[in-house]
Amino acid sequence: MPGNTFGHLFRLITWGESHGPSIGGILDGVPPNLVLDLDHIQKALDERRPGHHSLTSSRCEKDQLEILSGVFEGKTLGTPLAFQVGNEDTRSQDYEAYSNLYRPGHGDWVYAKKYGHRDYRGGGRSSARETVARVVGGAIAEQVLRSFFPSVVMQGCVLQIGPHRVDSQGIQGGFDNPFFCPDPQMVPIWQDYLQSLKDQGLSAGALLEIQVKGIPAGLGEPVFDRLDADLAKALMSINAVKGVEIGEGFGVVTATQGFDEMGLDSQGNPQFLSNTSGGILAGISTGAPIVCRLALKPTSSTRQPRQTVTQDGEVTSSIDIQGRHDPCVGIRAVPIAKAMVALVLADHALRWRGQCGER
Amino acid sequence: MPGNTFGHLFRLITWGESHGPSIGGILDGVPPNLVLDLDHIQKALDERRPGHHSLTSSRCEKDQLEILSGVFEGKTLGTPLAFQVGNEDTRSQDYEAYSNLYRPGHGDWVYAKKYGHRDYRGGGRSSARETVARVVGGAIAEQVLRSFFPSVVMQGCVLQIGPHRVDSQGIQGGFDNPFFCPDPQMVPIWQDYLQSLKDQGLSAGALLEIQVKGIPAGLGEPVFDRLDADLAKALMSINAVKGVEIGEGFGVVTATQGFDEMGLDSQGNPQFLSNTSGGILAGISTGAPIVCRLALKPTSSTRQPRQTVTQDGEVTSSIDIQGRHDPCVGIRAVPIAKAMVALVLADHALRWRGQCGER
Amino acid sequence: MPGNTFGHLFRLITWGESHGPSIGGILDGVPPNLVLDLDHIQKALDERRPGHHSLTSSRCEKDQLEILSGVFEGKTLGTPLAFQVGNEDTRSQDYEAYSNLYRPGHGDWVYAKKYGHRDYRGGGRSSARETVARVVGGAIAEQVLRSFFPSVVMQGCVLQIGPHRVDSQGIQGGFDNPFFCPDPQMVPIWQDYLQSLKDQGLSAGALLEIQVKGIPAGLGEPVFDRLDADLAKALMSINAVKGVEIGEGFGVVTATQGFDEMGLDSQGNPQFLSNTSGGILAGISTGAPIVCRLALKPTSSTRQPRQTVTQDGEVTSSIDIQGRHDPCVGIRAVPIAKAMVALVLADHALRWRGQCGER
Amino acid sequence: MPGNTFGHLFRLITWGESHGPSIGGILDGVPPNLVLDLDHIQKALDERRPGHHSLTSSRCEKDQLEILSGVFEGKTLGTPLAFQVGNEDTRSQDYEAYSNLYRPGHGDWVYAKKYGHRDYRGGGRSSARETVARVVGGAIAEQVLRSFFPSVVMQGCVLQIGPHRVDSQGIQGGFDNPFFCPDPQMVPIWQDYLQSLKDQGLSAGALLEIQVKGIPAGLGEPVFDRLDADLAKALMSINAVKGVEIGEGFGVVTATQGFDEMGLDSQGNPQFLSNTSGGILAGISTGAPIVCRLALKPTSSTRQPRQTVTQDGEVTSSIDIQGRHDPCVGIRAVPIAKAMVALVLADHALRWRGQCGER
Repeated sequence: MPGNTFGHLFRLITWGESHGPSIGGILDGVPPNLVLDLDHIQKALDERRPGHHSLTSSRCEKDQLEILSGVFEGKTLGTPLAFQVGNEDTRSQDYEAYSNLYRPGHGDWVYAKKYGHRDYRGGGRSSARETVARVVGGAIAEQVLRSFFPSVVMQGCVLQIGPHRVDSQGIQGGFDNPFFCPDPQMVPIWQDYLQSLKDQGLSAGALLEIQVKGIPAGLGEPVFDRLDADLAKALMSINAVKGVEIGEGFGVVTATQGFDEMGLDSQGNPQFLSNTSGGILAGISTGAPIVCRLALKPTSSTRQPRQTVTQDGEVTSSIDIQGRHDPCVGIRAVPIAKAMVALVLADHALRWRGQCGER
Repeated sequence: MPGNTFGHLFRLITWGESHGPSIGGILDGVPPNLVLDLDHIQKALDERRPGHHSLTSSRCEKDQLEILSGVFEGKTLGTPLAFQVGNEDTRSQDYEAYSNLYRPGHGDWVYAKKYGHRDYRGGGRSSARETVARVVGGAIAEQVLRSFFPSVVMQGCVLQIGPHRVDSQGIQGGFDNPFFCPDPQMVPIWQDYLQSLKDQGLSAGALLEIQVKGIPAGLGEPVFDRLDADLAKALMSINAVKGVEIGEGFGVVTATQGFDEMGLDSQGNPQFLSNTSGGILAGISTGAPIVCRLALKPTSSTRQPRQTVTQDGEVTSSIDIQGRHDPCVGIRAVPIAKAMVALVLADHALRWRGQCGER
Repeated sequence: MPGNTFGHLFRLITWGESHGPSIGGILDGVPPNLVLDLDHIQKALDERRPGHHSLTSSRCEKDQLEILSGVFEGKTLGTPLAFQVGNEDTRSQDYEAYSNLYRPGHGDWVYAKKYGHRDYRGGGRSSARETVARVVGGAIAEQVLRSFFPSVVMQGCVLQIGPHRVDSQGIQGGFDNPFFCPDPQMVPIWQDYLQSLKDQGLSAGALLEIQVKGIPAGLGEPVFDRLDADLAKALMSINAVKGVEIGEGFGVVTATQGFDEMGLDSQGNPQFLSNTSGGILAGISTGAPIVCRLALKPTSSTRQPRQTVTQDGEVTSSIDIQGRHDPCVGIRAVPIAKAMVALVLADHALRWRGQCGER
Repeated sequence: MPGNTFGHLFRLITWGESHGPSIGGILDGVPPNLVLDLDHIQKALDERRPGHHSLTSSRCEKDQLEILSGVFEGKTLGTPLAFQVGNEDTRSQDYEAYSNLYRPGHGDWVYAKKYGHRDYRGGGRSSARETVARVVGGAIAEQVLRSFFPSVVMQGCVLQIGPHRVDSQGIQGGFDNPFFCPDPQMVPIWQDYLQSLKDQGLSAGALLEIQVKGIPAGLGEPVFDRLDADLAKALMSINAVKGVEIGEGFGVVTATQGFDEMGLDSQGNPQFLSNTSGGILAGISTGAPIVCRLALKPTSSTRQPRQTVTQDGEVTSSIDIQGRHDPCVGIRAVPIAKAMVALVLADHALRWRGQCGER
């Protein structure tokens, strides 16, 4: 079973290589009669798009969304919603030099071992270009989610770049800076840090946080398709991610109790008095905000020479001369991570309705 | 789509409530003609079984495996392998007191919200008793894996309990102590720490590591069903897990480069010179050891009174009077985590063979 | 992907060999809070059970259902509903003679080719004994369906045995005879025909019809999971079935128009004026009765000697000396076919609700 | 779970409405390193394409295949193979008249009931235009199949139009006529019959047969995903199909024995001495030719006025004035049915290899 499909009732299938004519996907299972907000989708694409400023990749594409099916008179039909985005600025010649080389830290070698044939141009299918389709899918998922739970608010930010960590309390969104940084005072610090690494031919890792408010209690399936398990998969499937945590996350190792006490809200409904669980208990949403974090490794493509081997089995040195990569890929992962979280939640909303009915 | 199935070509479906007559599962997709090592499966069950010593739950069951189908004359038939394990020591009366109460930190409240009906005895479906079926499935998965890759070695250990961390270098397995602790000198320290918490009615979190050697390069599917994504889901689906990381994990946030250099081994084959990736690159195994870690929260059931609410909407206090819970559930999670990793790897081995043929 | 799972949101997974200790299944995705009617399930099992009279197999088992999980206080939990039925009357010694022989018309040879290992006792997994689990699943599916659409009525009958065909008009159900025959006058004719074949060591084919009234318009998914496509698969998956048709079926080949005209019912709602479509148009239910038919071949096991080969590659003669088979397996297929239809409809009811919401 | 995906290991997902900008699909799970024969795919598209002669629809499109991903340097990458075909000749204005009308025999009414919103232009998603994507997928499936089993030969023909039936013995393929008719003498008879119906504003049903030689014993999964069950679903999912049969099909009802005897071939290997089973026993291929037939109803769109209702609940008359439909849709279904059979077989070939290894 090939692995290019995500979700069950609400599912995204993506296709495309970095340097093919276009890249795209199909959203299958979209509820009918949803008035699509195309601006919202394009805005999400723009957030993911590189070329914003000097510290993200200089590959520059318009990333203009083209919807091919599933929408009629502005509303979803309930049939597959296919879409594509052109690959315009594909300077394939940049990659000719790598056709015989396995770039360390990239999928080149493992794709060659797995398939015996690979598209070496820009990493082919393993390129982060593929996440364009995730962002489109996620934006539509967010709209579906909002049609279920009108008060849903999704927020994502960068919490840490290298050693510099923001105080995560009170994330409020609308971070008007290219780093998705919740603390304006941190922006110049990160900027200096990244510039310094770039000058040395190095790159930086990042810690991201996604929060979703307004999800009611009840989403998530026992026992394997828990909401947290599906979120972990969703986030770990993003390029460069090496760790995922929910709520207290790895902090629980040194904790000495494992629960949030319960009380009643002003209407007399049960609620949790704290949220160490990150909004998920026994794999099911609790009604409290869903909180997850992910760690992304530094970009593998840098201007430092690295030892590697060629297809012909010779040791050589790889260096990213003309590549147009980010010194910190984590930054651009914020809209991607939000998209993956939205895809998980929309799927579980439909699955719950399917088995248990309207709330 | 209900969430009780794990895997695609090699799949485990589990069933059972903590206090039902039995608990079990179906393994579907087992390759035929495999001579089953029943002792190995029973040994895995015994490792998971509580009641080993004074610091794990005192619920005591033989956990005797009964295979119901799929095996004939000691060899697998290729048909569904169904199995069950009896629930013998189900002191349901212990739980009558909780029938009207939502225990904090447990699934009681969210199951009630999701389904409108719940088996309150011992957590019903949300009980860790369910992991019995995972351990059986995982043990068979490990045997399947070994029939593919004879040199596979799977190891799991506890790296940290509370603030006390073992040096993870050079894990060698065969840890002859009930804590799955790779460092014999750490055992008394953990023992004292847990006893002290138990005396205070508290419990401890834990950090676990699973390593798998002998997996060749090539397992894992782009782009959603990456090997690391599926491992993250597998491990996060275990009760009490709040974080998962691969290779360097969250350590990558402060790193300044994101790759392992490549060279040639003594036979002239490409190999990686380090393993910060934890054996997985672009979602596909690299041939280096697969390394993953998971964080488990402290047991929610302790003798400390906790504020909670009743089904009738009254605030009350919950206390685990007669419960027989572990002061550190993380310990018993070692065989469960190994099982989940084996299930992921066996499934991907079959998926690879299906699409790409024998290696 | 192994093939022992049927359905998506409402799914049945079955396991078991004919001569293993028991046979069973898991129903996953059952809506919670359904009060299970156990008598209704047992009655369906009794209808399927052989040994009713002299012209069905004399294998005699009580087929007593045992529910292992998913039900608490008489109501479904929404968790996996596992069940088993014991294999009591397994005269395996009857089959020792066949351990080295491929019985023609049975799965013996193809299972050996596919898996390289087989349970030769009673056909193992290929035995119609496996349909016990389908009947349990189908009975619960019917209850789920009725909780959605209270006016649902499912009926099944035998329309034809050998050359003797009943007029299918006006099937009314409640056929109080062991042949599920809608025309009491046909009963003695079929009885004589079957006795005559039995005396000659021959067997009879049969044509069955299943009708479902009360299904509203809207069930079925474009474009592959059409309601008729899923029904065709469901019915063709029953042992001995060689043909399936919907509505006019093969009669359409000589028709010269392909539609049912539309008008309004007494409430002014659109309705179809005829039902050549068998209640399904473009793969989606129309609100008219769903009508499908299936053809079952004569039993392969008869007392006539048949040429076959042994495992050692020798030509020999096979004869069913002690076997206890029906002269017409089609008769017992009525409750099985009803079960499969119910499974398809319940799954599509949940799928529709999942994507499109309550009606 | 939406129904636009077919297959498991080798899967086709299709998208597109009749009058959208294009129509297409994704093939996921294609084995890597397959040299694609693009001419073969285009030829299959051409066979399906209307406009060949005066008795098929006059909608005229080039149906030029555009591959968007998954192929590099002429060989498959093992990644998703996305493709599209433009919808060029979409005279949507022809359909404006139907925007408020439910055409009888079409999906108009059921789509409206199911989704509450529909693309009325040419039937939208329910149009047979969607089968373009199936034909592309099927042609590639056939190439995959041939890479597994080099001697595979697939043939399809029309056996009967209206009352006029060809003797099906000895189908040899390469039928050089627009009716896919195996008997040249039947061609003028069918031509006259269809012309006569067309003159009366009527249409004809058809009976098709697909044969596949060269499939070895062993394909097909017990118990639900039998090869015949999956073929039944595949064929019944084609527009206008109302019946499917395998081997003897409905003829078994009057048969008095249900098996093919076995003997040895010249190499001493077991073989079947007849093929009433149509090459499938117990759901698994026997090595004999796979034989299946399907019945297609007459076109629903004809120039005869038919009673129907409007969206506003008024009774009216529908007539296909400018429509460009075939008097016998069954003819063009031959390449579609072949494609669906190839998709089933390729998926089962991969599934078998996944679980059981290379043959």
